[in-house]
Amino acid sequence: MNSLLPSYSQSVRKRPELVVVGAGTGDPELLTIKGLKALQQADVVLYDALVDEVLLQHTPADAVRLYVGKRRGEKSQTQDEINALIVECARAFGKVVRLKGGDPFVFGRGMEELHYAQAHGLEVAYIPGVSSAIAGPGVAGIAVTMRGASRSFWVLTATTDTGELNPEIHEAVRTKATAVILMGLAKLPEIAAAYTDAGGGKIPVAIIQNASLPNQQTLTGFVSDIAEKAALSDIGSPAVIVIGEVVRQRLEKAATLVAALV
Amino acid sequence: MNSLLPSYSQSVRKRPELVVVGAGTGDPELLTIKGLKALQQADVVLYDALVDEVLLQHTPADAVRLYVGKRRGEKSQTQDEINALIVECARAFGKVVRLKGGDPFVFGRGMEELHYAQAHGLEVAYIPGVSSAIAGPGVAGIAVTMRGASRSFWVLTATTDTGELNPEIHEAVRTKATAVILMGLAKLPEIAAAYTDAGGGKIPVAIIQNASLPNQQTLTGFVSDIAEKAALSDIGSPAVIVIGEVVRQRLEKAATLVAALV
Repeated sequence: MNSLLPSYSQSVRKRPELVVVGAGTGDPELLTIKGLKALQQADVVLYDALVDEVLLQHTPADAVRLYVGKRRGEKSQTQDEINALIVECARAFGKVVRLKGGDPFVFGRGMEELHYAQAHGLEVAYIPGVSSAIAGPGVAGIAVTMRGASRSFWVLTATTDTGELNPEIHEAVRTKATAVILMGLAKLPEIAAAYTDAGGGKIPVAIIQNASLPNQQTLTGFVSDIAEKAALSDIGSPAVIVIGEVVRQRLEKAATLVAALV
Repeated sequence: MNSLLPSYSQSVRKRPELVVVGAGTGDPELLTIKGLKALQQADVVLYDALVDEVLLQHTPADAVRLYVGKRRGEKSQTQDEINALIVECARAFGKVVRLKGGDPFVFGRGMEELHYAQAHGLEVAYIPGVSSAIAGPGVAGIAVTMRGASRSFWVLTATTDTGELNPEIHEAVRTKATAVILMGLAKLPEIAAAYTDAGGGKIPVAIIQNASLPNQQTLTGFVSDIAEKAALSDIGSPAVIVIGEVVRQRLEKAATLVAALV
């Protein structure tokens, strides 16, 4: 399109656009100002399971709001179906905001959606979000890096596409990196076994469920006992697992780290 | 304190408090809503070099604003001096907001400040921020994880406390994790050599400077040529280095990924 010519078509029909937005970790006030502005301009919002529906209040009253996450026991939409829905909605209504928990580029498939949308002629944009990989441990009083304890952190998914333990966890065991494992609670016994087999039984571990939400809870222990402790507790998903010396330097009274400001 | 009793003292003297806040990556609109609210309630703001001063406009007109970052050629304050300043300011004025670029717990020494403040009787809180470790590559069109390309990402600082190459980079070379190296441009030849020595010369690399700001620039190449390309270009600090197959799947026309919404 020649940008020097007035664009009459734009005034009657909105430009199809996809903005992939990170909603942040749990607490809806962890959305960025830029993400908030995108919601305020949205014609359509497609949102995931870990997104707080209170965020939808930021959208215009006539915006279309569609839930595309997984519900337990129901067949969820496939990624292909979501991709097609994004393009369809953008062509019909204009600006589609794809709202995802955390950051869209951390195990979020946000990039796949952007590639597909761009290949189908949509304008595309990305607005980062606060990731549970960093903020999950953080709101429980654990810094993923800390002088003297850790010079790096390694963020891993627990499983491969076929449901097996991510083999990289066996590599992480042999390093001093803080390991941050997302979506890993079901694999906790295998993760702990991988560390124990490599002589890491005494490394401290924390599990943080519902990070930054009122029902946040944290379980701490060591590689040697964490799986048993978790089995005896009521801790569940969604949860972040942190393994490393930084857990030992957890800040006390940390449960209120974020809640104090709500 | 017994919370059932009215707190007369609070009305005449504010409670000393430290809130460590992540300002996010570059673009001041990447601050969270919660971070914005903390600034609006601040009595004192202590801010770092990578923080956009436009954010200070969110503070009350009578808030004290102190720059505690490093300036080239000037002697900067030591961490001990900053710790002492936080406690002094909180006792004198009340709520101290410590505003740091990115997330305070990613190589930010935020946890050290919280520990020190808590040990000196201050109330403490942490508000996470968008980290350049994820958003830096992201705004350049690179997802740190992507199906088929990467099941994990490893975030490393380039140097040890004594200025040598972080030895963990030699370990990262031998994995399939996306490596994200912060504050590493001066070590780029050594980083590239570590990868080349391990047979990784053909792995793609991207360097993103001033991520999400109007002067953002990205340089891409391979491990084998990136150091030479960087030396011949005008790319400089602050920069994020990303090494891994995900760089190959960079989204085109990505320079406007965030700017499009400013």
